[in-house]
Order: sequence, then C-alpha cells, then structure tokens
Amino acid sequence: MLALLQPALWLGSCLRGYHMPAASSQQRGDTSLVLVDEARRFIQDCLLRVGVSPSKVRCISEFLVVADYRGNYGNGLNRLDYYLSDLQRGHAKVHAEPSIISETVATAHVNGNSALGVFVGNFCMDLAVKKAENAGIGFVVAQQSHDIGMASWFGFRAASRGLAGIVMSNAAPTMMGPNSKSASIGSNSFAFCVRGEEYHFVLDMATSVRDIGAVEWAWANDEYIPHGWAANEGGLSTCFPSLALRTPLLFPAGGHKGYCLSAVIDILCGVLSGAQYGTHISLDQNNPANLGQVFIALDPEFFLPNFMERLDDFCGRIQNSPPADKSEPIRLPGELERMHMNYVDDLRALPYPQSLLTKYKEVAERLCVRPIELAFERCQSRKSF
Amino acid sequence: MLALLQPALWLGSCLRGYHMPAASSQQRGDTSLVLVDEARRFIQDCLLRVGVSPSKVRCISEFLVVADYRGNYGNGLNRLDYYLSDLQRGHAKVHAEPSIISETVATAHVNGNSALGVFVGNFCMDLAVKKAENAGIGFVVAQQSHDIGMASWFGFRAASRGLAGIVMSNAAPTMMGPNSKSASIGSNSFAFCVRGEEYHFVLDMATSVRDIGAVEWAWANDEYIPHGWAANEGGLSTCFPSLALRTPLLFPAGGHKGYCLSAVIDILCGVLSGAQYGTHISLDQNNPANLGQVFIALDPEFFLPNFMERLDDFCGRIQNSPPADKSEPIRLPGELERMHMNYVDDLRALPYPQSLLTKYKEVAERLCVRPIELAFERCQSRKSF
Repeated sequence: MLALLQPALWLGSCLRGYHMPAASSQQRGDTSLVLVDEARRFIQDCLLRVGVSPSKVRCISEFLVVADYRGNYGNGLNRLDYYLSDLQRGHAKVHAEPSIISETVATAHVNGNSALGVFVGNFCMDLAVKKAENAGIGFVVAQQSHDIGMASWFGFRAASRGLAGIVMSNAAPTMMGPNSKSASIGSNSFAFCVRGEEYHFVLDMATSVRDIGAVEWAWANDEYIPHGWAANEGGLSTCFPSLALRTPLLFPAGGHKGYCLSAVIDILCGVLSGAQYGTHISLDQNNPANLGQVFIALDPEFFLPNFMERLDDFCGRIQNSPPADKSEPIRLPGELERMHMNYVDDLRALPYPQSLLTKYKEVAERLCVRPIELAFERCQSRKSF
Repeated sequence: MLALLQPALWLGSCLRGYHMPAASSQQRGDTSLVLVDEARRFIQDCLLRVGVSPSKVRCISEFLVVADYRGNYGNGLNRLDYYLSDLQRGHAKVHAEPSIISETVATAHVNGNSALGVFVGNFCMDLAVKKAENAGIGFVVAQQSHDIGMASWFGFRAASRGLAGIVMSNAAPTMMGPNSKSASIGSNSFAFCVRGEEYHFVLDMATSVRDIGAVEWAWANDEYIPHGWAANEGGLSTCFPSLALRTPLLFPAGGHKGYCLSAVIDILCGVLSGAQYGTHISLDQNNPANLGQVFIALDPEFFLPNFMERLDDFCGRIQNSPPADKSEPIRLPGELERMHMNYVDDLRALPYPQSLLTKYKEVAERLCVRPIELAFERCQSRKSF
C-alpha cells in the first residue's frame, strides 16, 4: 500500500511560497504517522496564534486534513506554512469575508477581499449552487482570492447536493509553453465532481504533467524525477528535483493541449474576473497573490430526470472495459483517492514525510505552539473521520 | 509553406463513417489545387442531389469549405461523403429543425431532431448567445444531434458578438484509456473562442494526442505515424497508419488527463443531454449517431468593462515570452490556422490530396454530379473569401 504514496498521489499544486523543507538528506526518505486529530489540533493551534477566529480554524483544518486524507499531500498540511505566512504578512486577511460585486439570476462576480481561498471558494460554490437550483446553472467568478488548495473540495459541495460542480483556479506562472524557455502561465487547476447512485466521478487535476508538489515529494524522498516533468533553469528537462525546484518550469500535460487548456482557465479565472493572470501573478510571496477562480454548479434535473442512473451506466462501462494488464483494474477519477482514504483508515493515522514534520517543528517553535506529536503506538481508533 | 499541410494541421475528427480512400499508393502522395468556388459548387451540387434545400446547401458548403480554408481538413470536404451517406440513410434528416425541449433564463435543453450538426450547432449557439446577453451566461445542451465538424465554427458565432464561446461534443469511441485495450470513449472535442481588440484566441482540439484525421492524412500521404498516436488492434502503439485505421484506438493527450477530460465532455454532452455516450455510440454508420453537444456563451460585460484590453495583454504576454528556438515564434491557438488561411490566399485555391479527389470522383459518378474540376492555371482571384 505504500506505493500509494508515490508521486502519482502527490496531487495538487504548491505554487507560490513553496520551498524545500530544511531536512537533511538522511531524514528525507522517512515517514512518520500522525493521528488525524493531532494533525487537526496542530493546524488549529497555529492558526489561532496568527489571529484566526475559533470558528474559522475548524473549517481550515478540515480543509487541509481532508486533502491529506485523500492523498493530496501538496494541498494538505504542507500548505499550512504558506497560509500562516500570508496571514501574518496581511496578504490573506484573517477577518475578511467575500462580497458580491454584481450578479444576475445565473452569474455572480465576487470579490474575495483577500480572505483565505477556502472561504472564498465555499462562498462562491454555495452561491453557484443556489443560482443553479433556480436557473439550471450558476457561474461565479472571484477576484482578490487566495490559493484554493484542493479544488475538488468545492466540487464536492455541489455534488453532495446532487449537482455537478466545476472548479477552476489560476496560479503563479510555473509552466512552460511549447517552444518557450520561461514560465508564462500557471499549471492551473481543474476539478469536476458529480455523483450517481453507485459511482462518484471526482476529477482534480493540474494542467501540467505533474505539479510542483510531485517534484517536492521526489526531493523529500531523495528520488529522481522522470524526464518530461520539469526543466532546469536553462529550460531543459531534468531528472534532479533540486534543479527543477530552483526556477519551477513544469511541462504541460499533452504538450500544447495542456498549455492551451491552462490558458483557457486563466482567461476565465484571471482575465474575466479582474484578478491577476499569467506573469502578472508574482511567484514571490512578498507580494499578494490576487488569484482568480471560477465556480460552476449545474443542476441535472433541469435537463433529465434520470441523470444519476445514466452516470452510473457511463462509469460502469468505463470501469468494466477490458484492462490491458488484468492485475490492474481500470480506475475512474477519484478511485485512487478513495483507496488512499481506506489506507489511512487502516493505518488509523496520516503518514507524513520526516522533512515536512521537521519544517513544522520549526514553525511550532516560532509560534510557541505544541509541536506535532507522532502516533507510534497511539493508533487506537479504527476510523478517525 | 507545404509544411503547413503536415498532420499537425490535419485537425478535427473523422469519427464514424471514416474510411480509407480508394486511391492507389502511387496516387497517395499527390496534392491538387481546387478553386474555393469550385469546392463550394461541388458540395452544393451533391447536397442538392440528396434533397437538401438550396438555402441549406449554402450554409453546409460554407461550413465545410471554411474548415479546409483553416487547414482543418478532417472536418472539411473530407466530411461530405459521410454527410451524404447519413442523409441518404435517413440518419441525418434533410428537412429537420432543432427544437427546444425545456429552458430557463440561462439554460436550454435542445432536441436536434437529427438535423445536420451545423444546423443544430448554429441554433444552439445563437440561443446561448441570446441567453448570455440577458443573464450573463447561456448554457445549451443538445441531444439527437449529428456530427458538428469544426467545433470552433460555433465558437466564432459567439466571439464575433464580443462573447466567449465554448463548444464541446462527444463522438464515437475511438480512444483508449490508461491500462485499457479497447476504445471506451471518443476523442471528444473542445473549442474555446474569444476575441480582444488585437488578438483572437481560438482553441479547437480533440482530447486525443492526434485525431483519426491525422492518421488518415499520414495514410493518404504514404507516411509513418509517430509512436504514441494510435494503437493496432492488439492495443500496442503502431507506426503504420493502415494498422491504426483498422480498429481506431487513439491515445489520449497527456495520458489519463486527456482521457478524464474526454470523460467530462461526454458526461456533459452525452449523459446530461439524453444523447448516446461512451460505447453506446455506434462506430458503425449503419446505426444513427444521436450525438450530444454543449454550447456555452459568456458575456464578459457582465463581469468587467475592459475585458478585451485585458485579453490583449494576456495574449501579448504569452506571445512575447522568450522562445527556446528564436526562429520559431511562440504562437497562440488559432495562429497556425490563420497562417494556413494566408497560404490558401496565396495559392488562390485549396490543396487536396489526390486520394480525396479520387474518392469524390466516384461520389460524383454515383450522384450524377459534375466532378471537381482542378484549378491548374485557373487561379485568378487573389482572395476567394
């Protein structure tokens, strides 16, 4: 089951503010277990220290811990340090709430007012769902937003109410286009969530071959990366994560097709919303991000009465098509994440690389917070959530 | 300039009813010129013969000739034979008109009533534009539709009125998923068109590495295809287009990412619309297609007053980023097509492979229509359209 923790599952992006943990190479390959409640406790303690209200810290800790639970480590605890820094610098506002700039029966233009992405995203997706329940579709664009982490989090909010949820976000430029030697666009993310009676279809992807989190994971585990993931500072493909992390230059998925899709996402999220876009978004955490996002909810009942039944048939047909390698079944988007959740349930804790835990030991010291306690033999509960 | 006619520009899919032209290998590499008006004349004569009304033949011939003009040969004259067959079999209805099943202020569910795709698409995109002008967004799904050819045609309709146009269509299953050895989904298409004052952003792509038209083009030109485009009947990558065309098994762009995007398109176009989807769509032209599509129009004025200016800045930043190979500038989606249009303007005619012209000689005989006349020295007009 440890194979599940290979870079394939190191989903999500760590753009802006990512940095190599200060662990030594001896520590890098190690993994330690942390109880889910302990991870929650640590995240909440840190957030309270920087002035976030108790009602909000619960939402943020759930948002981060669920990402780790789903194996999306790039957008879990790993993100906390970046959020803390931006909250302390004022680039993300502790008490800010999103507000509506303008709206129609089916659309809204939202100002995130520099609230953390999870609050902007929850606000926008709930608004999109409400509009979709009246008009069939809700299309909400947000400016002045912050990183939204695991985009499918917001898609779930629509899917859990029987709607289809689509989420897109732009990001700092880390992706090279074809025939380019610099990053002119982010490895922008796309999520699509919908559920049938039997199947859930949960796609959450970056538009690059692999996101920066996969490169970080390889670095933390002292592994090479395959050619075609990322380039060195000269724009040439490299197998060394340390070189790839100096000036992030990721390759787009499917060459020009991934690049163009990323551009479409940036046009909708950045250009249309009034947020920053492309190379206007600073990689440097000394400047505020002003990211843009799109949240779409679609109510299938406005189109068909038996959508869920048809979706189950669609998913079943894909899953039951003959596999090339019979030992590996064909998997739908979201199934690997489901497997990871079962894996965490079996472990009764979250496995974190030592390098990450070392980083948070320093954060705990800095904020005078009790450091993360490792689980060891303390794994008692069968299922933590 | 002939490099422009390499498979890179043989865009669009020829799914369902595609077949290898009956040309000998000696003829396959040749290309002949046909005046644009002559191509129009031939298409219209053939369509009139199968009972299409004079007012409709003009629209269809424009739709096909513009695809060729843009270098999208898979969706141009190449498609005519397939349309004629389906019209003669009754799988596409000569006199059918799309109708609205249900609608809200921002959405519509349309029954294409088996009209040709160009009529369904024009109807749906015009409806989406109308809704977007009132509600900010128009989202229209169509069932009982036919092939829509060059999807960006419909995106232009929105872009020409200052809106963003998004078009998606499902298609017969020709694409293999990761770890699959059969095609469970189509290489479904996606188009996004929007314009600024200076730049146009026109993306029109299939979700496979290359569509079946690129393989056909290689076959017609007696060339190998690179590994990674398509598989043979056993599911293994092949360099021989003849093997790849027997049971179309295309590889998705960006591996599982292209496959998942194609699945999202099929969920929206097929599952949500009530049309066929996945392996329900027959590859065999003996059965009607019942394809599904989505047409979205977005009015930027509901969000920002200076969208065009921001789009120009976004496009300019991408285009002006430093190229790796200085002899090849960085190109935006749609620029290669623009170059092909200039190339056709210079030629004053459309270049077609001999194999295609041989096929249409047989079609002309069958329908008792004057065959396509080659241009040779007849290229008089500087610009045909």
